[in-house]
Amino acid sequence: MKLVSFLVATPVGTFTRVGAMHGRTIVDVNQAYARWLADQREAQPRRLADALVPSTMLEFLEGGSSTMAAARGAVDYAAQLAPSSKGPAGETIFYQPGDIRLVAPLPNPPSLRDFIAFEDHIAATSKKRGQPIPPEWYKFPVYYKGNHRTIIGPDDTLPWPLDTAKLDYELELACVIGRQGRDISEQQAQDYIAGYTIMNDFSARDIQFQEMACRLGPAKGKDFATALGPWLVTPDEIADLGAVTMIARVNGEEWSRGRFGTIHWSFPQMIAHVSRGETIYPGDVFGSGTVGGGCGLEMDRYLKPGDVVELEIQPIGILKTQVVGATKRDAL
Amino acid sequence: MKLVSFLVATPVGTFTRVGAMHGRTIVDVNQAYARWLADQREAQPRRLADALVPSTMLEFLEGGSSTMAAARGAVDYAAQLAPSSKGPAGETIFYQPGDIRLVAPLPNPPSLRDFIAFEDHIAATSKKRGQPIPPEWYKFPVYYKGNHRTIIGPDDTLPWPLDTAKLDYELELACVIGRQGRDISEQQAQDYIAGYTIMNDFSARDIQFQEMACRLGPAKGKDFATALGPWLVTPDEIADLGAVTMIARVNGEEWSRGRFGTIHWSFPQMIAHVSRGETIYPGDVFGSGTVGGGCGLEMDRYLKPGDVVELEIQPIGILKTQVVGATKRDAL
Repeated sequence: MKLVSFLVATPVGTFTRVGAMHGRTIVDVNQAYARWLADQREAQPRRLADALVPSTMLEFLEGGSSTMAAARGAVDYAAQLAPSSKGPAGETIFYQPGDIRLVAPLPNPPSLRDFIAFEDHIAATSKKRGQPIPPEWYKFPVYYKGNHRTIIGPDDTLPWPLDTAKLDYELELACVIGRQGRDISEQQAQDYIAGYTIMNDFSARDIQFQEMACRLGPAKGKDFATALGPWLVTPDEIADLGAVTMIARVNGEEWSRGRFGTIHWSFPQMIAHVSRGETIYPGDVFGSGTVGGGCGLEMDRYLKPGDVVELEIQPIGILKTQVVGATKRDAL
Repeated sequence: MKLVSFLVATPVGTFTRVGAMHGRTIVDVNQAYARWLADQREAQPRRLADALVPSTMLEFLEGGSSTMAAARGAVDYAAQLAPSSKGPAGETIFYQPGDIRLVAPLPNPPSLRDFIAFEDHIAATSKKRGQPIPPEWYKFPVYYKGNHRTIIGPDDTLPWPLDTAKLDYELELACVIGRQGRDISEQQAQDYIAGYTIMNDFSARDIQFQEMACRLGPAKGKDFATALGPWLVTPDEIADLGAVTMIARVNGEEWSRGRFGTIHWSFPQMIAHVSRGETIYPGDVFGSGTVGGGCGLEMDRYLKPGDVVELEIQPIGILKTQVVGATKRDAL
């Protein structure tokens, strides 16, 4: 499935809902499942649908494999329905892109970890400092914790952050955890991945490097925004993750291109490492870190107000973000 | 007020409740407020009490100054009641310490930031590496993000974490945010502090330093547990925060002693810094960082299984943690 989160504005408030892409149509998964239950003559289709196929993504992910299987059945069922079909009490099942607004597939992750798992990237950034790759990097997958409360989605813009003069993108693939666990082996870890999405770990390089001089963080240099989207794609949709191509374009010009298969530390290795003596939870986001060449820093090229950054990783799609607003000053 | 969170085990499940210390008695603040409303002949004392004085700490903090004022009134009212008094439907208002189990005053903070705000501590740790304090440290308050989901409280033990051979405590004061905000000035920042508590930022130094060699984190070296407690003390209870003494004892022997007033970056400065272009939320925890001399690292002395660590910061109390279990191996 290709899952999304979308906003529906109504006279009694704006609701966030889980959808599944069916071509360009967005299927409201909870409503589709309620429709199926009603057609099976269940006494309480709404109550059961809300429990098993929740309408918001974090609760949906918390439902684990039962929810995922029910959702899959509901989407298959919806594919056979007439486009005019409605939920048990006349609710909308099918939306067109113009009807709704996409947010990040998981707009409220309970945590965000970001790794440096690509050797080419740490080699390039170490070289910029005139240093070799730290030997510790080869011992375990290194990460920091990002800001899980400044997530932006595919229909959002990025206001120019703080007073940075070196705003950068980072081209990353992220996995989203679908199951609670602790002390998970690398072999079992794949079962804990609900799906994949594209991640743009926007970075204010000047602020970031000031912080990291104190051997902590990064914090303010990255915490202003992280983009996720457009879809959360379940693992069965990606035949060979290693073969996936990662592309970044700025205003249509290709700035970065890499292959996910060049990663040194796999997502299962990251999950095994993080879960040692520590519980991971549904909705936790693990960013891969930047693919080799996947940011402006490696080329000393930075973003400016008005730029449109597109990260493309098929079959997940294109995550587009426009930088808006003005710089506060010319240089830090 | 001296606020706590405590667990009440009942036949229909275990409930977490907000309490206020009245001597050694714990007043269930929500029940005390409901009692007061009932005595005022309100039609819906339970409904109003749950809305204005929620029974769990995060929701309580989200209520802001209205909740804090109502809670204060309820505790004053309870002080005049007979010890046998009950809530509107016979609920318990007063508990004795033996009746309940204390958890961290805020067992589920939505985020945890930890600073290095004491000059003596960064001077000592920099010196251990043979380096001066980074000049950037004087430019802004530096922090990393801790693990907000491994909080332990005053009645919890700490299982020996991972395979560390260098388990350490860190003696810190933390402030807890009580109001949502963004771009908060240093002058306004005090109004965003709901209260203070003691924080023990337990650290596995060997793991931490391996991680930090890669210029990110710390992560696994600190994420296994952070202790908070025993009470969340509102600012009005502390006449002069700068004069507060911070003490650490291991098995009754004093290992550390410092004065909070030696801090270089104040909590209001931290709040102003973090909130630049970024929203802070009720329940966010800001750790001060270790007071000078406030950890074993500075003395090359570490904890061993069975040790009891007590951090004392009056008038907040003593945060005691026993380390249990065994080391997995003798040295890393």
